Amino acid sequence: MTTVDATTTAQTLEELAAQLPDGAVITDPVKMEAYRWDRANDPDAGMPLAVVRATCTEDVQAAVRFAAATNTPVVPRGAGSGLSGGSTAQNGAIVLSVERMREIRIDPLTLTAVAQPGAINAEVKDAAAEQGLWYPPDPASFEFCSIGGNIATNAGGLCCVKYGVTTDYVLGMKVVLSDGRLVTLGGPRLKDVAGLSLTKLFVGSEGTLGIITEVTLRLIHIKRNPSTLVATFRTLDDATRAVLGITQQMRPSMLEFMDRPTINAVEDETRMGLDREAAAMLIVQSDEPAGYAQHEIETIAEVCEANNATECYHTDDPDEGQAFIAARRIAIPAVEKKGTILLEDCGVPLPELGRLVSGIEEISRRREVLVAVMAHAGDGNTHPLVVFDPTDDAQRERAHVAYGEIIDLAVSLGGTITGEHGVGRLKRPWLGDYLGPDVLELNHRIKNALDPQGILNPGTVFEAREGR
Amino acid sequence: MTTVDATTTAQTLEELAAQLPDGAVITDPVKMEAYRWDRANDPDAGMPLAVVRATCTEDVQAAVRFAAATNTPVVPRGAGSGLSGGSTAQNGAIVLSVERMREIRIDPLTLTAVAQPGAINAEVKDAAAEQGLWYPPDPASFEFCSIGGNIATNAGGLCCVKYGVTTDYVLGMKVVLSDGRLVTLGGPRLKDVAGLSLTKLFVGSEGTLGIITEVTLRLIHIKRNPSTLVATFRTLDDATRAVLGITQQMRPSMLEFMDRPTINAVEDETRMGLDREAAAMLIVQSDEPAGYAQHEIETIAEVCEANNATECYHTDDPDEGQAFIAARRIAIPAVEKKGTILLEDCGVPLPELGRLVSGIEEISRRREVLVAVMAHAGDGNTHPLVVFDPTDDAQRERAHVAYGEIIDLAVSLGGTITGEHGVGRLKRPWLGDYLGPDVLELNHRIKNALDPQGILNPGTVFEAREGR
Repeated sequence: MTTVDATTTAQTLEELAAQLPDGAVITDPVKMEAYRWDRANDPDAGMPLAVVRATCTEDVQAAVRFAAATNTPVVPRGAGSGLSGGSTAQNGAIVLSVERMREIRIDPLTLTAVAQPGAINAEVKDAAAEQGLWYPPDPASFEFCSIGGNIATNAGGLCCVKYGVTTDYVLGMKVVLSDGRLVTLGGPRLKDVAGLSLTKLFVGSEGTLGIITEVTLRLIHIKRNPSTLVATFRTLDDATRAVLGITQQMRPSMLEFMDRPTINAVEDETRMGLDREAAAMLIVQSDEPAGYAQHEIETIAEVCEANNATECYHTDDPDEGQAFIAARRIAIPAVEKKGTILLEDCGVPLPELGRLVSGIEEISRRREVLVAVMAHAGDGNTHPLVVFDPTDDAQRERAHVAYGEIIDLAVSLGGTITGEHGVGRLKRPWLGDYLGPDVLELNHRIKNALDPQGILNPGTVFEAREGR
Repeated sequence: MTTVDATTTAQTLEELAAQLPDGAVITDPVKMEAYRWDRANDPDAGMPLAVVRATCTEDVQAAVRFAAATNTPVVPRGAGSGLSGGSTAQNGAIVLSVERMREIRIDPLTLTAVAQPGAINAEVKDAAAEQGLWYPPDPASFEFCSIGGNIATNAGGLCCVKYGVTTDYVLGMKVVLSDGRLVTLGGPRLKDVAGLSLTKLFVGSEGTLGIITEVTLRLIHIKRNPSTLVATFRTLDDATRAVLGITQQMRPSMLEFMDRPTINAVEDETRMGLDREAAAMLIVQSDEPAGYAQHEIETIAEVCEANNATECYHTDDPDEGQAFIAARRIAIPAVEKKGTILLEDCGVPLPELGRLVSGIEEISRRREVLVAVMAHAGDGNTHPLVVFDPTDDAQRERAHVAYGEIIDLAVSLGGTITGEHGVGRLKRPWLGDYLGPDVLELNHRIKNALDPQGILNPGTVFEAREGR
């Protein structure tokens, strides 16, 4: 825990507040409550010294300079929708919220968006769409997650299987460094190899190297309406074999997987007539030009049928397709209604997807806890949700054991502990074993080079220093 | 200059040689001659202490450990096809050649290639093609440049406008660090956000942070045969306006530009009937599915005609299309026959392409030197070639002045000093001004964190330390 002399801090905080717009600094514990957690709901969230609601880059600089001068931790925060606890408040820290920094400018000539970090992903998509352009990365939370958070975690989504992840769309940024200096990296140039790839280094750094205050995003031309195929399978093996069969032949624009517990949770919500007996369901899209999309969908249908699909339905109607995507998008909230959840984000090399999902089923059975698995199957990126009754201590304990066993299983299959949510605080205990001591040390060397005081988001990705 | 006690060095070099396969260590100055230059032909290339021709990762580790122990610079070297002097030998250095490390394994299930750094880009493409897969990045030198060099420089090419650059295809790597330790970063997982984006940091680091000994590359399904359109224009403005008109509407799979001096140099070589009077020529391809490609080509033709194209020809015949691409690919060697060249690699935001090429024409006129401009126009990435008669000292001087003025012009238009060739030794004098002191310092902090002795490719990207 940071121990700061209360009088000094109060004075300095007042000085900081004087530099910032009215109401930018919040110290009222009741008002700060909303800024202590993200969607990981870490029970160990601390009580911050203050929340600073920045309105511009200069505000962020002022807050970071204050933090550097007083050796105060800074926890950057976008929309608070993170799933790994990367925005969890800490005792004595400044929570630096960028929720008021939401400007978006679209440049149709350079095909870029310049956005402030608090802009919501969907707002960037909408602004781009007004100019006939598209910002592809689409986390399931795209309607309420911030671009800053997306970049901090190198967020993925449903379209990644064909269109890549966040880092593939980041051309440049403004970043406030740990001493309050502002640097501009990259810009609206499609190619630039002058100096180290710093832009790419900051993507996915979860607020531990600097605070992003503006990003330049690459846009592409607007997506065509996709055709959609939905197939159900009697066994997990059939479904994962179909995934491999599809990816061997094409890059569909979406390839999502839901297992039986997920299908049932979604059906409980939607009553859309999903097959509750199916072991798994795939939702696949092709957005190729008319004619060719149908050709791809036919191939996908053939693969599904060759892998014993029990049902295989396809539609060119965008609204009907959208209904299945909506079903997939509400899968997490639907499962959340079954109990408290521990959300996983394991990715494996594609050929291991089958072993991962059947291993998870085995863990679920052995530990007697419900695990609902949904997956961006075309990327090998799964989200097993371990569900438990929060009033049942024994079940809670078994759930945590299952959670750890799932991570260990993914790693043993050559997979990662986090595919798209970030390490945050939640996955930090697994990071060292996953990376190994040498790669972990390489991470530390860069962290120390860029944040020698260790004030930027301590406890996220990296252990907080002693005494913090 | 490094001063190393000759006796000690000789002994230690012998010890190193004893650890390596027969013939791996070359110290004969005549045999070392071929390892002193890359295609930048730096006249200041030094005489190395030794050339080490590694056959495996362990050989590289042994060489780097020797270098660390003796504080000897290490210059990593792939095929020696670099255009910025990043492989230029230095006095007293070890040139670490990976030309014998050429293994390639294709995994059709994970859709990846695992390649050693000495593998030629074309060899990776060929191995992938045998499995119906494609490795897109295609520097003009793809038939003789190494994958290791491509990754060291984050190389681009002709297909980038639609398919992105090298970094977009690098999923993982093995890297020997400056102390000889080996680390493995990433792997055949399409998504992985555990820890900092170190894989991306090493891409484009030009051998200054570590030595890559294996890479895992993402492959995609094989490219369809493209349709090709060639258009000529009476003015540079017409041509660059057409480029903008095309990119506003679609991402063609290729969008290349050649100005009059380039067209004429190519026509001198090929006698294929190019219009010698045209101010500029565009070569555009669409590889969308049949039917839709024709639709794109028609749109491209309309844009060209609306911008006063004097000729506009298109073909669906792959061989005929290939002839135009071949013409573009031989543009550099064709211009090289006109004199000694200084090769530029400036990139600008797309809307500035017109101002850049007309500004270059103005510099060419004012400095009375031939400048031939070819460009990956769809990326805003140009290659102006400043040509001079090596026997004419005054002209040589004017050429160097023009070269600097072109860089300054690109930067003044919001452009970069290098789009795809790398900083190497050639562009280093411009790097500080381009990045500014804070970003340069950020580069140095990371360099110092990963290579505290400063032994990895000193003089490339970063100034060599005092006394080196």
